[in-house]
Amino acid sequence: MKVSARNTFEGTVGSVINGAVNTEVGIDLPSGDKLVAVVTLESARSLQIAPGKPVVALVKAPWVMLMTDGKGIRLSARNCLSGTVKTVKPGAVNAEVVVALPGGTEVVAIVTNDAVAELGLAPGVATTAVIKASNVILGVPA
Amino acid sequence: MKVSARNTFEGTVGSVINGAVNTEVGIDLPSGDKLVAVVTLESARSLQIAPGKPVVALVKAPWVMLMTDGKGIRLSARNCLSGTVKTVKPGAVNAEVVVALPGGTEVVAIVTNDAVAELGLAPGVATTAVIKASNVILGVPA
Amino acid sequence: MKVSARNTFEGTVGSVINGAVNTEVGIDLPSGDKLVAVVTLESARSLQIAPGKPVVALVKAPWVMLMTDGKGIRLSARNCLSGTVKTVKPGAVNAEVVVALPGGTEVVAIVTNDAVAELGLAPGVATTAVIKASNVILGVPA
Repeated sequence: MKVSARNTFEGTVGSVINGAVNTEVGIDLPSGDKLVAVVTLESARSLQIAPGKPVVALVKAPWVMLMTDGKGIRLSARNCLSGTVKTVKPGAVNAEVVVALPGGTEVVAIVTNDAVAELGLAPGVATTAVIKASNVILGVPA
Repeated sequence: MKVSARNTFEGTVGSVINGAVNTEVGIDLPSGDKLVAVVTLESARSLQIAPGKPVVALVKAPWVMLMTDGKGIRLSARNCLSGTVKTVKPGAVNAEVVVALPGGTEVVAIVTNDAVAELGLAPGVATTAVIKASNVILGVPA
Repeated sequence: MKVSARNTFEGTVGSVINGAVNTEVGIDLPSGDKLVAVVTLESARSLQIAPGKPVVALVKAPWVMLMTDGKGIRLSARNCLSGTVKTVKPGAVNAEVVVALPGGTEVVAIVTNDAVAELGLAPGVATTAVIKASNVILGVPA
């Protein structure tokens, strides 16, 4: 499998919480980082999602929001991954920012150049990558 | 808090409707504009979302769709904010479009240059910014 | 109606499955292709979604993920549309890729230039366009 999504996190299912319609899936990454995904109950059943199962979590870079100075705020998004900026590649309107987490995982975000300037994003700057659980696509071996 | 999301709407929680899994949150902006967000019930409880609480609604610019000539259509998206184009900043593939709502709120969208051409987006043109409620991230003071 | 979304699929409602909060809507396209959308129950009722009703399914190009060599993987995303690349228009950071499905439907995706290189996306290459059902906005005649 090759995917256009810049974020392909390989991990293992840690927790599965079934709701009436959706299932919340906790994913443990080898780096020690954790992710939460929300998929439909039907998808979870079809993919036989269960604790211990290897999965890949896919997140497109434009679905990642970056935050700095986040001490005073709490967000509804389930994934708030704190790390430091590794690289910034500016384009005409957007820039690609790579964030390195302490555990070694890297998260790629596409944000506007304006955001890069406002947040002062540059290598070494502390930042938090924010990902909504509903924006994580799960894949399992066929 | 500084975020890469180009849309950070500060407002007050107006209504809270709890479902089995999700919570629908109505947000009143000082400009008189209203937004609807859908977050998980767990997030809403954790953030203690309740009427009157100050919140910030975060929406990344690529999550905003623009529409013109919308008279003949009704959409499933909960947020359809009508205004006029303020600025258009074209890039190589995408353009950043700022829409001013009558109440004074501004909405930033990233759309393709093709869309700008097809819709004739230019300063002064009437347009509607469409945002799915599930694409709104809520933040509350920590 | 004119929308910035690069994907506007006109079709007919095939199936409607109501959950407690969300409604899953199957859409038959004239090309024979099928799409699945998930909207809130309230939206589905308000729009009077029912089998046989003409609808338009709107999907922004950045919400489409592309995949190649997908044989060994199964995804939680409900829409996996297999076709071949028709055109690739590279920008500074992102590229616009048009995928032609066998039935004649075209799907437009915005992916990074890095993804284009890694997946070897070029005219004629087999690829799958992946769209989460929750990222489909439905429109009905007013």
